[in-house]
Amino acid sequence: MSINAPLGIVKRNIVRADAAAADQLGKYGTATVHEAQGRIGLMQTYMRPIYPGAQISGTAVTVLLHPGDNWMLHVVAEQIKPGDIVVAALSSANTDGFFGDLLATSFKARGARGLVIDGGCRDVKTLKEMDFPVWSRAISAEGTIKATLGAVNIPVVCAGLSGNPGDVIVADDDGVVVVNAADARKVADAAAAREANEGDKRAKLASGVLGLDMYNFREPLAKAGLKYID
Amino acid sequence: MSINAPLGIVKRNIVRADAAAADQLGKYGTATVHEAQGRIGLMQTYMRPIYPGAQISGTAVTVLLHPGDNWMLHVVAEQIKPGDIVVAALSSANTDGFFGDLLATSFKARGARGLVIDGGCRDVKTLKEMDFPVWSRAISAEGTIKATLGAVNIPVVCAGLSGNPGDVIVADDDGVVVVNAADARKVADAAAAREANEGDKRAKLASGVLGLDMYNFREPLAKAGLKYID
Amino acid sequence: MSINAPLGIVKRNIVRADAAAADQLGKYGTATVHEAQGRIGLMQTYMRPIYPGAQISGTAVTVLLHPGDNWMLHVVAEQIKPGDIVVAALSSANTDGFFGDLLATSFKARGARGLVIDGGCRDVKTLKEMDFPVWSRAISAEGTIKATLGAVNIPVVCAGLSGNPGDVIVADDDGVVVVNAADARKVADAAAAREANEGDKRAKLASGVLGLDMYNFREPLAKAGLKYID
Amino acid sequence: MSINAPLGIVKRNIVRADAAAADQLGKYGTATVHEAQGRIGLMQTYMRPIYPGAQISGTAVTVLLHPGDNWMLHVVAEQIKPGDIVVAALSSANTDGFFGDLLATSFKARGARGLVIDGGCRDVKTLKEMDFPVWSRAISAEGTIKATLGAVNIPVVCAGLSGNPGDVIVADDDGVVVVNAADARKVADAAAAREANEGDKRAKLASGVLGLDMYNFREPLAKAGLKYID
Amino acid sequence: MSINAPLGIVKRNIVRADAAAADQLGKYGTATVHEAQGRIGLMQTYMRPIYPGAQISGTAVTVLLHPGDNWMLHVVAEQIKPGDIVVAALSSANTDGFFGDLLATSFKARGARGLVIDGGCRDVKTLKEMDFPVWSRAISAEGTIKATLGAVNIPVVCAGLSGNPGDVIVADDDGVVVVNAADARKVADAAAAREANEGDKRAKLASGVLGLDMYNFREPLAKAGLKYID
Amino acid sequence: MSINAPLGIVKRNIVRADAAAADQLGKYGTATVHEAQGRIGLMQTYMRPIYPGAQISGTAVTVLLHPGDNWMLHVVAEQIKPGDIVVAALSSANTDGFFGDLLATSFKARGARGLVIDGGCRDVKTLKEMDFPVWSRAISAEGTIKATLGAVNIPVVCAGLSGNPGDVIVADDDGVVVVNAADARKVADAAAAREANEGDKRAKLASGVLGLDMYNFREPLAKAGLKYID
Repeated sequence: MSINAPLGIVKRNIVRADAAAADQLGKYGTATVHEAQGRIGLMQTYMRPIYPGAQISGTAVTVLLHPGDNWMLHVVAEQIKPGDIVVAALSSANTDGFFGDLLATSFKARGARGLVIDGGCRDVKTLKEMDFPVWSRAISAEGTIKATLGAVNIPVVCAGLSGNPGDVIVADDDGVVVVNAADARKVADAAAAREANEGDKRAKLASGVLGLDMYNFREPLAKAGLKYID
Repeated sequence: MSINAPLGIVKRNIVRADAAAADQLGKYGTATVHEAQGRIGLMQTYMRPIYPGAQISGTAVTVLLHPGDNWMLHVVAEQIKPGDIVVAALSSANTDGFFGDLLATSFKARGARGLVIDGGCRDVKTLKEMDFPVWSRAISAEGTIKATLGAVNIPVVCAGLSGNPGDVIVADDDGVVVVNAADARKVADAAAAREANEGDKRAKLASGVLGLDMYNFREPLAKAGLKYID
Repeated sequence: MSINAPLGIVKRNIVRADAAAADQLGKYGTATVHEAQGRIGLMQTYMRPIYPGAQISGTAVTVLLHPGDNWMLHVVAEQIKPGDIVVAALSSANTDGFFGDLLATSFKARGARGLVIDGGCRDVKTLKEMDFPVWSRAISAEGTIKATLGAVNIPVVCAGLSGNPGDVIVADDDGVVVVNAADARKVADAAAAREANEGDKRAKLASGVLGLDMYNFREPLAKAGLKYID
Repeated sequence: MSINAPLGIVKRNIVRADAAAADQLGKYGTATVHEAQGRIGLMQTYMRPIYPGAQISGTAVTVLLHPGDNWMLHVVAEQIKPGDIVVAALSSANTDGFFGDLLATSFKARGARGLVIDGGCRDVKTLKEMDFPVWSRAISAEGTIKATLGAVNIPVVCAGLSGNPGDVIVADDDGVVVVNAADARKVADAAAAREANEGDKRAKLASGVLGLDMYNFREPLAKAGLKYID
Repeated sequence: MSINAPLGIVKRNIVRADAAAADQLGKYGTATVHEAQGRIGLMQTYMRPIYPGAQISGTAVTVLLHPGDNWMLHVVAEQIKPGDIVVAALSSANTDGFFGDLLATSFKARGARGLVIDGGCRDVKTLKEMDFPVWSRAISAEGTIKATLGAVNIPVVCAGLSGNPGDVIVADDDGVVVVNAADARKVADAAAAREANEGDKRAKLASGVLGLDMYNFREPLAKAGLKYID
Repeated sequence: MSINAPLGIVKRNIVRADAAAADQLGKYGTATVHEAQGRIGLMQTYMRPIYPGAQISGTAVTVLLHPGDNWMLHVVAEQIKPGDIVVAALSSANTDGFFGDLLATSFKARGARGLVIDGGCRDVKTLKEMDFPVWSRAISAEGTIKATLGAVNIPVVCAGLSGNPGDVIVADDDGVVVVNAADARKVADAAAAREANEGDKRAKLASGVLGLDMYNFREPLAKAGLKYID
């Protein structure tokens, strides 16, 4: 969590990252985007998709929840705009099942593309059927109450990474990456550049060319002292 | 484990929960059943299905195993009646592969619907092909010996939850829930009531109605001090 | 890791286990092979396949990596021969994404059947599409650098188990097993013997015969003091 | 937790184990008592003393708490009698700091000898100064609220072990052991018998006699096939 | 980490919290301060003191490190002023021993009161003799290199909590709490108020008065439905 | 474990590292020795001393145990010579209490300086009073049986690190380091060289000289792009 964030607040107007850049980043996936922005911005690896195969990107609306209480997920629903991804942080560690198929129905109706939650999720079978992807730290049938105020669209810390409303979220089978809203276009361009020559590299490697030769690693390896023995 | 349980005992006659109620509970799944019985009865979240998609319910036959020893799984097989689910507890924490395809063949022949084990499972590929679902704390090829007596149909503690033979087990992708045999009908009715109006709620949410309005949360949120800012 | 292993060394000529035995072991899978060699040789259970269903065997080429550095994976690629499986150990614990689709393309072109890595893997969606199986301790989009020398084809410790280049690796949904190169034929024969009578056992159990009777457990259980009560 | 336990209940009259036996068991410590009752009854090893050196025994008064809520600790305080140890279970996993120096002052005034809690503890420095020992799963400054009913003196599951009010608790640097109230005298006698010849054994071993000879292990080891090589 | 933080930057001028408030907060300890600021601001509970008994407070100078690299700890040393506590965050999870007695000598000479590090620490015996307290996620003899730029005095995420240079750090046996620089005086006053009547409460509880009566819990408990049975 | 190790074997004659070098290494402690041998040889950080403050070195006698079975600890006792440290590996992960005060009495009588065990230990209070240090992965009162053959003085994998009988073990509050027998003298000399100029460095740092200046880091930091801002 962020202790700078005021509780009991819903911020309605946030500056979302450029939509085209946000959409484009999703095509590259987390590994490429993470590299493209200088190898930063990956949430901790305990954040896993509840089912394999989904790959999304979108702009973050953020929400801070308290352990065992999902009241604010109903509050954040109203702030969702088409193309958003909800990022739910917790004030302290908890694995209860904050989110299920009813909330997913609501989020989807508002245009959300998915949820990233530093807590538990349930109804995973139905969520898969609905094609509403979630990245969470746990799967749990444990229900939650609706009793305590958190906050919406404040800076949060989710899975060890700080993020702000409007940032770009990229999520796939490899994890969840956050890109600063202001850097979205620049990172998208860098990611595009990385991808551009991947096809060529892949073809070379598939034909049997070694990375040792393609990347010219033999000389620096020898300089570093690598020795071949029989 | 339960230190009240005598070792070296197989209890043959147990009072199983009402079969109709036990069957009915499986339709609702763990999240609904957990809520319906007052948000209790979920095993710890490390209990995961060995493959996704299975959703079962049934009456518990229980067995206490010792680490690295699966002898009692052969003993419990004889006590299985059609509609049962085997619940295997351990006398101390262990992740060895106590259960595989041969035992599954035997359990299935006896009418078991699945296994819940606070230890490891193996042959998961074959178990999936057999459609014999298992919820376990680990997957492991590590084999076990047959040397030490445990007990069958005694009270057990499995994944942090105490249970008795004859209780109802509900298990799906969200985890494993236990319902007291005596409460099965009451909980099934409560679960049915919860389900009854879910279709209506889902339709409303899908049409864009917010939970804020559907559940009348705006007033209590305002009372709690929630503030909207721009 | 093994402190006996010299760093900065690539051993080119290794003695691989008998290819026929190595291939044969893969048919039985890890559970059977683990039993067949006297219930030893299973890597720790945190080693999981990045997608379900793959079952492979092959001869080990080994590589020692440093945390956050995958340079040596390019070096080991050149030492791969058809039928090999790469076994990557780490000098200290780390979950970064050392391996992705480009390296997989290269490994596959060299004839590798898969990778076992005591670290993280990325591009799992693409690896599944390529049908290139990996067993790893984590999935992570976190990229790595190319800066430090490790070693190739030295003895390694991977996931708590020591192994040597040329050993047989068997990997499936139940985990990863290592068989000494010198024991491959003997273990393959023992595994074959185990499998030979499994069909018969399975048929008996499926017909309702109990393991208690098929294995003659009733007498030793009674001797051990097992009591049946009502 | 135990789903058989009614919530919202405080049971005032419980049958405590024989006080002399309960006191006597503390002298032997957990390792001896655990052996003496047939190697059962140890809580999971994550239960650790908040400071080293304390060794206590007493009769259990039990309490079920909900995550993040310590209200029932004030309720259980009234049920403490001199010689008791409070055993606090949780309805689901949580590490908040449920217990601190003020509650310890109250518990001590009532005659409690210590606390065993399947959650977090705080004020550990002061608790050490007060000589009020606690065994917990975590240390945490995170405070708790007072809002939800649990129960007092019901059967509980604490750290993977079921226990009842009135049972004997033995706790020291090696962990926490539970002895059934009805077995307290029998286990105390068995523990005394174990201790009786330990002094003699210790003297022999200290003089250089090997366990191999003192326990006559050489013959069974040879029978099992142990071979000595040079 | 915070992806908003520029790498390769050392910020020299930071606004430190009011020194008197920072000093005063240390007297109350983490549990009281955490409560006083509305039950927020505790780092995750895996952050533990390397030896028991230290209780400190001070103003944060922050540093971002990369796994296995402690170069920036030498850079941050120059920015330490008397009364500071160094807060070291990592760009990804790692437990190497970043900090030992030589750096502690340097930090101490600059006036630092301690270190909070989301990684490993070594030389703990010497650090204890030096009375230089450290809160860390691990203890490890594993050394680190000096090769990569991080940043100094930028916003960081340490042990799941975001913090800024100049914030107040309070650390003791119960964990680590962060107080916003701007709130230091207000929180110190609130903590003082909490402490003021603790002596009186403690005396009452020590005399046998129950929290049930002292806090007037009997009526709300009855209203919530608590029942006493025999 | 090592699958190359024959079970059921006790090797009586092992080549121990040079005694003087082994003794000397203990003076430097694990952090210095780890650095001196090229930053390798540290066991995983879950290996912790059962009480703080001990610092030892000695020559390894190794033993392989099976989960829940400490029979071979009696066998290895006979192979201990003065100056040895017993290194106990397990065939699969387990935290039972394999070792307690009686075995410690025997080991001490044989001249052992301590125990390193990849499992659990008990009687820690007594072991501290006896001044017999143990590094273990857990503390547990759970007793073990004496039923299965392991092996003595074979190569083992302990806490992720392979080791051989006769190697030097160095253990202190920072963990456990293994030095190859053949390298003991060389590593001792390198450690001595590291220590030689530490006093001078410590004095400089204590006087306020910065590591930035003492190690001439300013120039390489500037080259790497470090920028100071206000």
